[in-house]
Amino acid sequence: MFKGDKRSLARLLTYVENRHEDLLKIMAEVYSKGGHALVVGVTGPPGAGKSTLVDKMIRVLRGQGKKVGVLAIDPSSPFSGGAVLGDRIRMQDHNADEGVFIRSVGSRGAHGGLSRATRDMVMLLKAFGVDEIIIETVGVGQTELDIMSVADTTLVVLVPESGDTIQTMKAGLMEIADIFVVNKADREGADRIFNELIALSEMHPGDWSVPVMKTVAVKNDGINDGILEVIQQIQSHRTCKKEPHGYKASQHDAVQHCLDVFSSEMRSKLLMLFESAPPYSSIQKRLLENKINPYEAVSELLNLIKV
Amino acid sequence: MFKGDKRSLARLLTYVENRHEDLLKIMAEVYSKGGHALVVGVTGPPGAGKSTLVDKMIRVLRGQGKKVGVLAIDPSSPFSGGAVLGDRIRMQDHNADEGVFIRSVGSRGAHGGLSRATRDMVMLLKAFGVDEIIIETVGVGQTELDIMSVADTTLVVLVPESGDTIQTMKAGLMEIADIFVVNKADREGADRIFNELIALSEMHPGDWSVPVMKTVAVKNDGINDGILEVIQQIQSHRTCKKEPHGYKASQHDAVQHCLDVFSSEMRSKLLMLFESAPPYSSIQKRLLENKINPYEAVSELLNLIKV
Repeated sequence: MFKGDKRSLARLLTYVENRHEDLLKIMAEVYSKGGHALVVGVTGPPGAGKSTLVDKMIRVLRGQGKKVGVLAIDPSSPFSGGAVLGDRIRMQDHNADEGVFIRSVGSRGAHGGLSRATRDMVMLLKAFGVDEIIIETVGVGQTELDIMSVADTTLVVLVPESGDTIQTMKAGLMEIADIFVVNKADREGADRIFNELIALSEMHPGDWSVPVMKTVAVKNDGINDGILEVIQQIQSHRTCKKEPHGYKASQHDAVQHCLDVFSSEMRSKLLMLFESAPPYSSIQKRLLENKINPYEAVSELLNLIKV
Repeated sequence: MFKGDKRSLARLLTYVENRHEDLLKIMAEVYSKGGHALVVGVTGPPGAGKSTLVDKMIRVLRGQGKKVGVLAIDPSSPFSGGAVLGDRIRMQDHNADEGVFIRSVGSRGAHGGLSRATRDMVMLLKAFGVDEIIIETVGVGQTELDIMSVADTTLVVLVPESGDTIQTMKAGLMEIADIFVVNKADREGADRIFNELIALSEMHPGDWSVPVMKTVAVKNDGINDGILEVIQQIQSHRTCKKEPHGYKASQHDAVQHCLDVFSSEMRSKLLMLFESAPPYSSIQKRLLENKINPYEAVSELLNLIKV
């Protein structure tokens, strides 16, 4: 299935996005193929410099001879999008490197299918044989939390200006973060937020004590930017990880995964049936003519489908 | 179905949350019952004072003798939750008032069903006979955009500190906003952001020129807080509305609605089947024993289901 080159991987990722008709068969094969890569999630508010941080992480990992896959999830929506495109372009510097694979994934129009698509893409990258997978997203809503549930280690990236955010979102931050990163740490207020996060991380009950790192990802000297230390902490988290997050654990459930794939497959199937013949086409017709409402349509559909 | 009291409405809303087995039948009836209420969406970044604004809007609308329903969508997630609970409690002041119905809706565990639940709840409030419906959410991800697609008029609430947000998210903000509100407008920087939003709103192509309002929702004099002017602009938008947003229009499609309800019903159905008898129970068993993977399970399931 894989020719080992980036082009064939790109094609398979497009199959996921377009829900190719053979996707189920392809993914069953991919799932069995496995792969050893672990997933690092990078999330945080807009403007925290996540893409620059990811860019620098790629450089360090490449320096260690590792193949890296990056999924940049772009919610394309108010309070998030916009600046992302520019960051994407910056990351394209790596495009000539056969050992780096970067893919932007848009959410507009995904109709709740974004976390499924992300999960499928992670499996493809693993089967492709990358050593590290980084998922970058603007972490805010339920969708982003679902996306982050595939990550083995999650970095929450904040900046000195995020003080209010921290105060109002303590519980949520502690739930998701395995490592805190204070980026743009050369700015005023960095120490204050650093100390707040330290205090917060000490409240964490489990075995893993959430470290708080400082980075200046935009620095170009590659020495004092703090990125190497972040990579080291990710490794530490992996070796010490005895305590999967409750939320993540439940999400990883194979039954849940099956339910997700099943409901989206049934949705696609119904769309096809609507365009085919009666009785399905007539239900769609009456729906469009406002002769039945959506709930009545679904009642009819459930009577037609034999399980 | 409705006894006209808040308790029976609360019970029906709980049916939506718990997906009561008769929900489809109930909603078909509710859909046909209709109702005249229009929906105002209130969104914006965390800390913009949305709940305080909504609280004041309720007071003005009650002063006009209108019955008000409020859905406070709480994504319960990093970068959003936290402060919300306190705001909820403040809004509970209205609980003794028979003319106000407030419901918090959580997203944790909703598994992509939040926009469906919101839509169902809006229909219930309409059928219950409220005059105005307000949906408050922390607008960030795709989920929140989906939720806001049920709103007839959407307020985007910003604060003087939101300058960077505006610069990076121009396109997204213009797509969603019918009215901009600069809350906490007594703070430094309010004029600057006000002027930026004015410039932005002038770029809007359609018939409706997006107004930019200033509020100080936390003010208690009830005169100079700017809320009354916001309510007036909402009315103006309704009377002038010739131009539904492309995104909203497509989302309102009855076929999409039917697809959403159908796929979530099929998901619930499968969960039930898994717990029943072979062949479904045996698929779940093999899935849990890791003998088949989720994609193989879905392939088997699709072969079992006759359409």
